[in-house]
Amino acid sequence: MQKILLTLSLLFSFSLQAAEALPSWNEGISKQSIINYVTAVTKENTADFIPVKDRIAVFDNDGTLWAEQPAYFQLFFAMDMVKKHVSEHPEWKTTEPFKSVLANDIKGVMKSVEKGLISLVNATHSNMDVETFQEEVRTWLKTAKHPTKNRPYDKLIYQPMMEVIQYLEANDFKVYIVSGGGIDFMRAFVPEVYGIPQEHIIGSKGEVKYENGKIIKLPEIHFIDDKETKPVAINYHIGKRPVAAFGNSDGDFAMMEYTEANDKHKTLQLYVHHTDDKREWKYDRDSHIGKLDKGLDYARDNNWTIVDMKQEWKVIFPFELKK
Amino acid sequence: MQKILLTLSLLFSFSLQAAEALPSWNEGISKQSIINYVTAVTKENTADFIPVKDRIAVFDNDGTLWAEQPAYFQLFFAMDMVKKHVSEHPEWKTTEPFKSVLANDIKGVMKSVEKGLISLVNATHSNMDVETFQEEVRTWLKTAKHPTKNRPYDKLIYQPMMEVIQYLEANDFKVYIVSGGGIDFMRAFVPEVYGIPQEHIIGSKGEVKYENGKIIKLPEIHFIDDKETKPVAINYHIGKRPVAAFGNSDGDFAMMEYTEANDKHKTLQLYVHHTDDKREWKYDRDSHIGKLDKGLDYARDNNWTIVDMKQEWKVIFPFELKK
Repeated sequence: MQKILLTLSLLFSFSLQAAEALPSWNEGISKQSIINYVTAVTKENTADFIPVKDRIAVFDNDGTLWAEQPAYFQLFFAMDMVKKHVSEHPEWKTTEPFKSVLANDIKGVMKSVEKGLISLVNATHSNMDVETFQEEVRTWLKTAKHPTKNRPYDKLIYQPMMEVIQYLEANDFKVYIVSGGGIDFMRAFVPEVYGIPQEHIIGSKGEVKYENGKIIKLPEIHFIDDKETKPVAINYHIGKRPVAAFGNSDGDFAMMEYTEANDKHKTLQLYVHHTDDKREWKYDRDSHIGKLDKGLDYARDNNWTIVDMKQEWKVIFPFELKK
Repeated sequence: MQKILLTLSLLFSFSLQAAEALPSWNEGISKQSIINYVTAVTKENTADFIPVKDRIAVFDNDGTLWAEQPAYFQLFFAMDMVKKHVSEHPEWKTTEPFKSVLANDIKGVMKSVEKGLISLVNATHSNMDVETFQEEVRTWLKTAKHPTKNRPYDKLIYQPMMEVIQYLEANDFKVYIVSGGGIDFMRAFVPEVYGIPQEHIIGSKGEVKYENGKIIKLPEIHFIDDKETKPVAINYHIGKRPVAAFGNSDGDFAMMEYTEANDKHKTLQLYVHHTDDKREWKYDRDSHIGKLDKGLDYARDNNWTIVDMKQEWKVIFPFELKK
């Protein structure tokens, strides 16, 4: 009986979802393309119908589900960990990129952003077991604030994209994150903040070893989940081709191309285009982070959905919602 | 309305499951320990209750869900592929382990079983895209027969273990396979044969590259999912500690130890012990495949469940079921 009641309440919430899907989206091309797609592939006995088991949707994270400016939030975490643990590592005071971090010289750190990020991650994300590391991430999220938005980092998620995730899940899609961000880092907060379970989170990862019942993080990158390795990671974790892919940069292009090459099912590709320099940030072809250039041209030529954040999103972040 | 009917029918089948769980198991210690565990952890408002999101069960495959004697079935597949493709590779006629394969000299191949298996896998599981490879596995399964049982390999699955999987799933467990077998090999048939979806199958894997919308398999092993790397693979794919683990060999010990070290939830560890030399095979401490030695001692000392196949299983394979 409990199960019946549960289903009735699910049915009810589902009807609400269908009627009022994507409330933070203005009526427009992007909202319509998402709704048209989901409606088409969930209608039984039609050519476009996709069985539930094949409804796999993949989302990039940085710049697609939460903000990524002026630098990846994981970099800010790593920098804060350097400050927190410098007493155990006096050598950091005289070595780059730690020296710049300790001097609050973000530009100095950013000079070698990829290499700097890797050194910082190796130094601050290792020599502890995964569970201890994730506690450190959660503790950090409770107090750290974004340097310009002055909000906790996990409040800088995109409300309209959360609604896309909920809409897809209400229509029996399995939603995965496929991100260049660290897999253990994301798993520390994404389940609670986005409602996506740990096992649906795919990302870059460091080497680990198993010892006495624990998984110990080692100071070495094992796999960077970006560009051509995103489809590789999807194949490894999910084992089937997605039908819908959401990204914001050239780093997501291969994953979206891989999705588009699904020859069994109708697919959807969507780029979030950062066009709002007031409420968020405006960047694409020349950005040092989240560069969208080749992908933008291809998307325009191939009828992919391109979201104009400024025009199409009523709010960007959840805290802008009217109570 | 459809959803309500569906739920009613699910409820009905669920009740059947609970009342008649594990029908191919004789009443005894093992059946009782599985039922006691599942009953305890699914009872709300009790100390042992495990929330649905944490109900993760992991199963080894070879020797735990299907047979593994006289050699891993994937080795027979690789051998058959050597015979099928030898005209494209005349050099195989004079090179080991291919020469022994072509002479049907299994003992010759087995002399260097691990190294031989890797060479054979590298040679026969590569230079094609994943989807083509999986078609080859499915085609093989339709015609190939086990050398002594004279049955298709995918009929040599353990009926009592299939019932454990169904019983766990009926109780909202997420069931994963964590096997030393090849991930792409298993994904070709496990979803249809066991009812476990592709994304819940974890295994050893070769290198791959992404190219033009396809995942191409390369002739190099990337990751062997065995012993201490089983917990590593679980952490990478699932991101949380299982609560129940099922294996049959020392190769599964680390995964079961990792599960037992779960400090949040009550856990279950179960070894399938191969004790039936008539209906299946009898082997443990001295076997060249599926060796169970250290694990057997630990299991006996630590109150793990040890299934005596001969005594506790009414049937081994599904084809022994009375119609």
